[in-house]
Amino acid sequence: MEVGVGFDENDYLSCCGSTKFAKEMAAASPFPSYHRALTVAKHIWFNIVDVNGWLQAFSAHPSIGQPRPPSHASATSAEWSIGEQSTALATSTASSLQELAEWNARYMQKFGFVFLVCASGRSTESLLAELKRRYANKPIVEFEIAAQEQMKITELRLGKLFTSKKNISSTTDT
Amino acid sequence: MEVGVGFDENDYLSCCGSTKFAKEMAAASPFPSYHRALTVAKHIWFNIVDVNGWLQAFSAHPSIGQPRPPSHASATSAEWSIGEQSTALATSTASSLQELAEWNARYMQKFGFVFLVCASGRSTESLLAELKRRYANKPIVEFEIAAQEQMKITELRLGKLFTSKKNISSTTDT
Repeated sequence: MEVGVGFDENDYLSCCGSTKFAKEMAAASPFPSYHRALTVAKHIWFNIVDVNGWLQAFSAHPSIGQPRPPSHASATSAEWSIGEQSTALATSTASSLQELAEWNARYMQKFGFVFLVCASGRSTESLLAELKRRYANKPIVEFEIAAQEQMKITELRLGKLFTSKKNISSTTDT
Repeated sequence: MEVGVGFDENDYLSCCGSTKFAKEMAAASPFPSYHRALTVAKHIWFNIVDVNGWLQAFSAHPSIGQPRPPSHASATSAEWSIGEQSTALATSTASSLQELAEWNARYMQKFGFVFLVCASGRSTESLLAELKRRYANKPIVEFEIAAQEQMKITELRLGKLFTSKKNISSTTDT
């Protein structure tokens, strides 16, 4: 049985908010495996999507510590953001959330896009430390780091997509 | 005598079309010398201006071989663009201009910004060869190269600004 047959642009857009990425992934579908989909996704993200597409994908993320999504993020993307930030939120205090909000604002002011980090399983303290460290970077350096973090997030989300599809397929097949 | 005292945001915007660059340069003025202005300009461009500012600056340039400026470019910037491309235009033929136009369009389609190159003194043939070579780059690599080319253009234009100011000052002083 082949998995991944039924994914469309909107599914891929929930993994990564660049419309070019989503279109190219849909055009390259179906994939025989998650592994193959991931290889293609990395190629598309780092070689095909242009810098405007990177900025578009970044803008689909909520600020860390503030998992209310941007209004143009999909419902699935919004739900996944909340899940990815669950450890951070569970380990936060009012003062650490306040400090995170202040540093998020400083970061946005300097770089022009949201602080992007693959937050899964990470505490507020560790995310805040990373934000402060990365704040010192040059804009172009930080732009590339953010793109790498986006790819880590995309990788996790593609995994969720394939897992959910597999479950649905298995259920249907039995 | 100090030179460079009278430059304002619009003068710097003609050198580099990022409003952040122009504001920061105006705030750092006056400069005791061209050399000092150039050092500050490089620092601002590579460390302070964010990636959105880079894209804004790129968008102020006409396509190579088509020196009609974007409507939001300043009159000075437009005039300088024509001067910078004078060798290219003098060495062009109808077919080389046609080929350049086609490759410019392909480049814009792939990277999402205009092909940027410090064209001063260079033939159409040499510019076309560079465009074709750079077209193979990854988007993020090309983004950085374009930013370096923008800085070369800014350097030349700052030189023109200081030269013109010096002449005016000398005339006024005598």
